[in-house]
Amino acid sequence: MTVALRYLRESIAPLVPMRERTAVEASLGRALLEDVTALRNIPHYRASAVDGYALRATMTAGASPARPVRLSLETCQWVNTGGLVEPSFDAVVMVEDTSLDGSELLVSKAITVGANVRPPGDDVMRGQIIAREGDVVTPQHQALLRAAGVEGLLIRALPRTLYLPTGDEILPVSYEGPLPAGTVPETNSILLRGLFSRWGFPLTVGDIIPDDPARLRQALEKNMDAYDLLLVGAGSAKGKKDYTAEVFSSLGDLLFRWVRTRPGRPAMAARIKGKPVLCLPGFPMSSVVVAMGIVFPLLAHLQGLPAEEEKALSRALGSFGSEEGELLFAHSSPPGVEEWLRCQMIQIRGKTIVWPLPGGASSMRAMSEADGVAIIAEEKLECPKGMKILLHKSKEISLERRILFQGSNDPAVERLISPIRRLGCDMVMRSVGSVGGLAALSRGECHLAACHLIDPETQSYNDSYIVRFRGNAQWRRRQLFFRQQGLIVAKGNPKGISSVEDLARPDLSIVNRQPGAGTRVLLDYLLTEKNIAPSFVKGYDRQCITHLDAASRVAYGLADVALGIKMAAEAMDLDFLPITEEPYEIVYPEECHDHPGIVAFLEALEDQQWRAEIDKIGGYRWIC
Amino acid sequence: MTVALRYLRESIAPLVPMRERTAVEASLGRALLEDVTALRNIPHYRASAVDGYALRATMTAGASPARPVRLSLETCQWVNTGGLVEPSFDAVVMVEDTSLDGSELLVSKAITVGANVRPPGDDVMRGQIIAREGDVVTPQHQALLRAAGVEGLLIRALPRTLYLPTGDEILPVSYEGPLPAGTVPETNSILLRGLFSRWGFPLTVGDIIPDDPARLRQALEKNMDAYDLLLVGAGSAKGKKDYTAEVFSSLGDLLFRWVRTRPGRPAMAARIKGKPVLCLPGFPMSSVVVAMGIVFPLLAHLQGLPAEEEKALSRALGSFGSEEGELLFAHSSPPGVEEWLRCQMIQIRGKTIVWPLPGGASSMRAMSEADGVAIIAEEKLECPKGMKILLHKSKEISLERRILFQGSNDPAVERLISPIRRLGCDMVMRSVGSVGGLAALSRGECHLAACHLIDPETQSYNDSYIVRFRGNAQWRRRQLFFRQQGLIVAKGNPKGISSVEDLARPDLSIVNRQPGAGTRVLLDYLLTEKNIAPSFVKGYDRQCITHLDAASRVAYGLADVALGIKMAAEAMDLDFLPITEEPYEIVYPEECHDHPGIVAFLEALEDQQWRAEIDKIGGYRWIC
Repeated sequence: MTVALRYLRESIAPLVPMRERTAVEASLGRALLEDVTALRNIPHYRASAVDGYALRATMTAGASPARPVRLSLETCQWVNTGGLVEPSFDAVVMVEDTSLDGSELLVSKAITVGANVRPPGDDVMRGQIIAREGDVVTPQHQALLRAAGVEGLLIRALPRTLYLPTGDEILPVSYEGPLPAGTVPETNSILLRGLFSRWGFPLTVGDIIPDDPARLRQALEKNMDAYDLLLVGAGSAKGKKDYTAEVFSSLGDLLFRWVRTRPGRPAMAARIKGKPVLCLPGFPMSSVVVAMGIVFPLLAHLQGLPAEEEKALSRALGSFGSEEGELLFAHSSPPGVEEWLRCQMIQIRGKTIVWPLPGGASSMRAMSEADGVAIIAEEKLECPKGMKILLHKSKEISLERRILFQGSNDPAVERLISPIRRLGCDMVMRSVGSVGGLAALSRGECHLAACHLIDPETQSYNDSYIVRFRGNAQWRRRQLFFRQQGLIVAKGNPKGISSVEDLARPDLSIVNRQPGAGTRVLLDYLLTEKNIAPSFVKGYDRQCITHLDAASRVAYGLADVALGIKMAAEAMDLDFLPITEEPYEIVYPEECHDHPGIVAFLEALEDQQWRAEIDKIGGYRWIC
Repeated sequence: MTVALRYLRESIAPLVPMRERTAVEASLGRALLEDVTALRNIPHYRASAVDGYALRATMTAGASPARPVRLSLETCQWVNTGGLVEPSFDAVVMVEDTSLDGSELLVSKAITVGANVRPPGDDVMRGQIIAREGDVVTPQHQALLRAAGVEGLLIRALPRTLYLPTGDEILPVSYEGPLPAGTVPETNSILLRGLFSRWGFPLTVGDIIPDDPARLRQALEKNMDAYDLLLVGAGSAKGKKDYTAEVFSSLGDLLFRWVRTRPGRPAMAARIKGKPVLCLPGFPMSSVVVAMGIVFPLLAHLQGLPAEEEKALSRALGSFGSEEGELLFAHSSPPGVEEWLRCQMIQIRGKTIVWPLPGGASSMRAMSEADGVAIIAEEKLECPKGMKILLHKSKEISLERRILFQGSNDPAVERLISPIRRLGCDMVMRSVGSVGGLAALSRGECHLAACHLIDPETQSYNDSYIVRFRGNAQWRRRQLFFRQQGLIVAKGNPKGISSVEDLARPDLSIVNRQPGAGTRVLLDYLLTEKNIAPSFVKGYDRQCITHLDAASRVAYGLADVALGIKMAAEAMDLDFLPITEEPYEIVYPEECHDHPGIVAFLEALEDQQWRAEIDKIGGYRWIC
């Protein structure tokens, strides 16, 4: 992408700065296009620098604390700091060096001519340059300029950008009623508007252009003169991109197609009438990557600002700074591309840990949940666990007050995040299953794990697993609640499923959870109990990592049944056949007991609003 | 100030969050007050994850590159990435794994049911929480929320702040015509508006309240209910502050008077009807210090956010980050107060150097020119040269492209800053006199020095001084121009001054420049030439550090005559009696020759616009 950007910079000349006259009050953050000189002195009169008495210096000759000089109050004048020193006086004695005795002033210090008097122009002289070409106006400038009598400023006009969404399948976001299958609401312009607004640049969004080269061509020709930068939002279709390139080529020079970046690869740029025209990929995250990595620096280039790549990236991402952390797990980066990873970050035992969120360029959720972006260089392929990477933050995060939960997925615990936040802390979660959580805790990779693991030998929950993973460490345990596990089946139970035995029916297929998930351990236990071999269960190998995900497979007919909790069935409007009740337990190391996040977690468990919400959904029984 | 702030936090309860409903599009940067659940699935239909052909997976059984499966195109359907996979199909084969042969499709890979098909809800499921209470809305959230069918959000209303300027001497900034002596334009509200706007908080500014306790009381009572925070802008008068405290006490509890901070000491706070009311000091810089150090964190506290002092300071200053540097010269900090220094910063030979700008709390110019603020802790008194201090930046600065000029003050060189900036670089200047500049250069404390120093022995300029200071270092020299030095006298020369000899007249007083200034060296040379001892020259010991400053003393009748350059006389509309012409020369170390700032400086010397400007003013003669 850096190469693409450099090539763009070479191919497109910066704009001749367009001038705009504006009031000082409306100039915050804008760049001056001329030196500004003061129109009046500050102060514009002889002002006292202190609270005290204006007088003639000669009158204080010989004064000392031991032998104060006595003056009639009529020969001097009280003056406040900043007040006018009348022409008949040439100095001000500080009030601290005087005392009053009836109508007489006792002065205990001899002062010289001009003492404590600020001459006109002491701070700023009329005609003096007080702000310069290139200054970006701050609140401090604004106050100074107005104080110096300046009203209007010549500032650099901002580059004008037009975004044109395209695609037959794209509907306006304001579309009323349910979306037809195969259509996509036009949300990329919302994303871009937000980014442009953060950056302080204007953005105009055009109407959606259908998949018709003539229409795109027409739209570009019509708007070429009124804008400095045109962005075309591609739909996701391969055919479409081809015609965009064709249209670009027919109007000007195609500068590049594809960039070596993931996501963001299908970006494209042309120079039409000397102006840059970019095609942004349709996937939201791809669009963000190209917006931050190319569009923002290009806006800076158009303004004639120097190419400072590190700084541009930090500003493009929102100026929340960057922070180094160690990769939580190994990551393979595809060869030949620079990869932008959406990551979350945590601090644990003084170590900062970073991990990429799952989901491709199409995932709006991962994009939204990420704390920021880490960039894996093109030449980097295998990134081992523990490798240091730099996270460019796009949010303000408070690492000291945030905990990482790894373990069994549970929607009730997920809902604890808000009460924890109300207590000024935060929790991020990774659903890695009960066993995965205990293993992560034993490696010191989370503050908190949760499990519901039945031991087939003893038929008791959790104890044997915790003992195994804990080793010599001190861990605290706490049971949160019992929850019902059961069979999630389609509404009305059309296949007449009634028990675990039915899972072996050849006309049924299930969806399972990942190895190490407590629910999968439970399924294995239940199957063993009924003497059913997994190979007789159709779909046993199809895995989901959350209850809700499993339920959704049932809801969309991809499976007939899943073992899971009642809340997931309810959320998907499915039927639920209770099988058993299990204890859900959290575990955390002794040394985390005082962590503000753990303290908040434990306090949040008593949150009545949260409990009432869970009770309403049902399928949970409180332990106390 | 930290103590004052903590006390305020303890005394004032955070606001009960006020709720506000807003459109997703208008919610950027605002905090959510509730969890938000998706109203529809993303995708909301079975979508293809690739460009390819939708088909039934069983049709591909046994396919391999060596033995592709042949299918009629009628049994499958082309589908774009993101496109609808019709219910009759259960998988999508990537276009890369196919080829066309007439009306037949050759599939070279066997795929399983569900391959490359994203089920509905694959990214986001209806009913799933997609943004949480406490989230600060990002562009990414906005796009996600709208894609999930969410239109409105419940967000935290921002605290409402009212600023009430006070003071009989304060005039509206829009005041027409010349300001009467002793009045001050009301610019603190402009400063506060700018700061609030950067912070993202609303600010209402009231009318100026005259110095009348009853009027202030009335204004507070009237606005108490409509605002969450009231700020009273004190004039600078001591008497006034007294009555403000009185009014505060009569309406509620006075929490503190004075803070141990400089500037900013006269801050005051009260709790009236449970709400915080602050009195901001009148001097602009004092007002900024209290705004950043108390008002901003208080706004965070009112919103119930945790007290994160470091972060709050960085955000209050504008999120330009902080950087450590070494003090350029020793600084004495007053005892018992935390001192906020307005500083500039430079990088030289890999070392970062910081220095405080001169001027007290009243200086709007220093406030505006500073790169940021360094805070000297209360217990720190003597800060030796080279001490590390942390600069909290309030501007974006590019240290690699910036040079520091130290040396003789010259207005023409000052005007070079803009052409240098047009070349993408920057220059900051310290007027330390010709000798001071050479000394700084010899210590490696600037990139560039300038001098015009006559050697009384040889009557030649600069050579002997440069040889003395250079030592073994390699320095480059370049003469920029000749400039006229002469006597600056009042308009019309009322005292009939005609030559250097007149400076000894008992009815005249002069203003001199600081020791080491080339102009002072010249004066000494001229006096020696005429056999006049300095003790015969009245005002010989009164010092200014710039030509303009010296001229202004003459303009305001504080002196009758000063030696200086023609430009300064012109700027102040004074008369000028030429005495001599001197060469003005710059010097820089060999190793700085390639510094982008020096390159830009040398290039800027050829700037025709700059030369024309200087020619217009007059008193300069170009060397080439």
